[in-house]
Amino acid sequence: MNALHFTSDSLVHGMREREFTVNGVPGVLWSPADATGRAPLVLMAHGGGNHKKHPAMTGRARLFVNDCGYHVAVLDTPAHGDRQPTAHDEAELAALLAARAAGEPEGPVVVRYNAHLAELAVPEWRAALDALQLLPEIGADGPVGFFGNNMGTAIGVPLVAGDPRITAAVFGQHWPDVLVEPARRITIPIEYAMQWDDEHITREQSFELFDAFASTEKSLHANSGKHKELPRFEAESAARFFARHLGTPATRA
Amino acid sequence: MNALHFTSDSLVHGMREREFTVNGVPGVLWSPADATGRAPLVLMAHGGGNHKKHPAMTGRARLFVNDCGYHVAVLDTPAHGDRQPTAHDEAELAALLAARAAGEPEGPVVVRYNAHLAELAVPEWRAALDALQLLPEIGADGPVGFFGNNMGTAIGVPLVAGDPRITAAVFGQHWPDVLVEPARRITIPIEYAMQWDDEHITREQSFELFDAFASTEKSLHANSGKHKELPRFEAESAARFFARHLGTPATRA
Repeated sequence: MNALHFTSDSLVHGMREREFTVNGVPGVLWSPADATGRAPLVLMAHGGGNHKKHPAMTGRARLFVNDCGYHVAVLDTPAHGDRQPTAHDEAELAALLAARAAGEPEGPVVVRYNAHLAELAVPEWRAALDALQLLPEIGADGPVGFFGNNMGTAIGVPLVAGDPRITAAVFGQHWPDVLVEPARRITIPIEYAMQWDDEHITREQSFELFDAFASTEKSLHANSGKHKELPRFEAESAARFFARHLGTPATRA
Repeated sequence: MNALHFTSDSLVHGMREREFTVNGVPGVLWSPADATGRAPLVLMAHGGGNHKKHPAMTGRARLFVNDCGYHVAVLDTPAHGDRQPTAHDEAELAALLAARAAGEPEGPVVVRYNAHLAELAVPEWRAALDALQLLPEIGADGPVGFFGNNMGTAIGVPLVAGDPRITAAVFGQHWPDVLVEPARRITIPIEYAMQWDDEHITREQSFELFDAFASTEKSLHANSGKHKELPRFEAESAARFFARHLGTPATRA
């Protein structure tokens, strides 16, 4: 039984914020403060080293909740946020820092470690979605979208490839490698962000992953700037992408 | 003297539509019906085979005028719309149709012919901008943007490279060739659209032109689909791009 337990209920940035756990995994659900009916749900996975309530998450949530009227759920990924790292996590983080210190490419470590975290996180997301869909304000057959950059893409691509409940997804900024195979099984509309001057991921690597998606509708957004310089207007673009594909809430107060 | 002569004044699609000529070149100026103050101006060049009032122009103009509150001006390119083709135009069109009928690439003919048309059109656009800036509702120092796909990009890239009055531009769907050199002189914010499955322009050709822009802020939007399948939501993206860079009108009624 994947029961969802709410542990808090407050008003933050104009949104109703409820923290919860599912099978012990901590998450947060942001909802329109004035909602009376059902609304689409966006699952949002955070980036590596971040957590469920990082400003990059709350900032996007405000657009999706306050502007679109959606629910947004974020889980802490294993070893992130309120979740303790294992010895394996510590070793992988040390390997990443060692590669950085030596001026070696981060990609091989990040790809390997993100694949490990995704194996753990994907079943957690499925269980969380099962539980969230039992809430009357979301419902079992309501529209569901996915948003995740960086590590969020490493989790999201296998999640979306295996879960037909998710019907639109925004990804970005990851190496192809292990993601090409699940990407080839994805046919829903996709928006994919890359940085044109990314110092970690080559243009060809971004093109390879984008090309792999089997979606008939997919858009690649390549912006000038380095890996961490993703422009803020991409969050607004994601909100409009979801508005096109998830529709609008059934009822607003 | 590049005087602007208005030849009509009507209300179309909720916009004030004024046809005009500058040095005999026919154009149209769409403006907010309820405007009382000054507003930014978007110069919009049409695609090959189209004309100033083609639905692709009026549809985008409605977004820029009715949603953003801007003025939009379009000129008929030589040999298009109300302008008679010369013997040279007829010969180039015949060469294009012959290439199509033979299943040969269109690129070499289109690149050559568009470069010829751009040489004629760029001075016409400069003269039109001179004249439009004398209108009190536009003004000599107001923000000016440029929008043009296909042939509109062939005209717009050399126009924008040589005219510092234009401070934001949306381009797309053209071969690099003669445009790389002027693109290297462009430093203003750029949004560039390409089709991921374009049957005429290769991905590498699109990347080469996008890469050439010297702009610190530039965005490439690659959408799935063939050459003529540019999604409509790119027009909305262009409207938001202009809103970020040209600002909002000084006064609205």
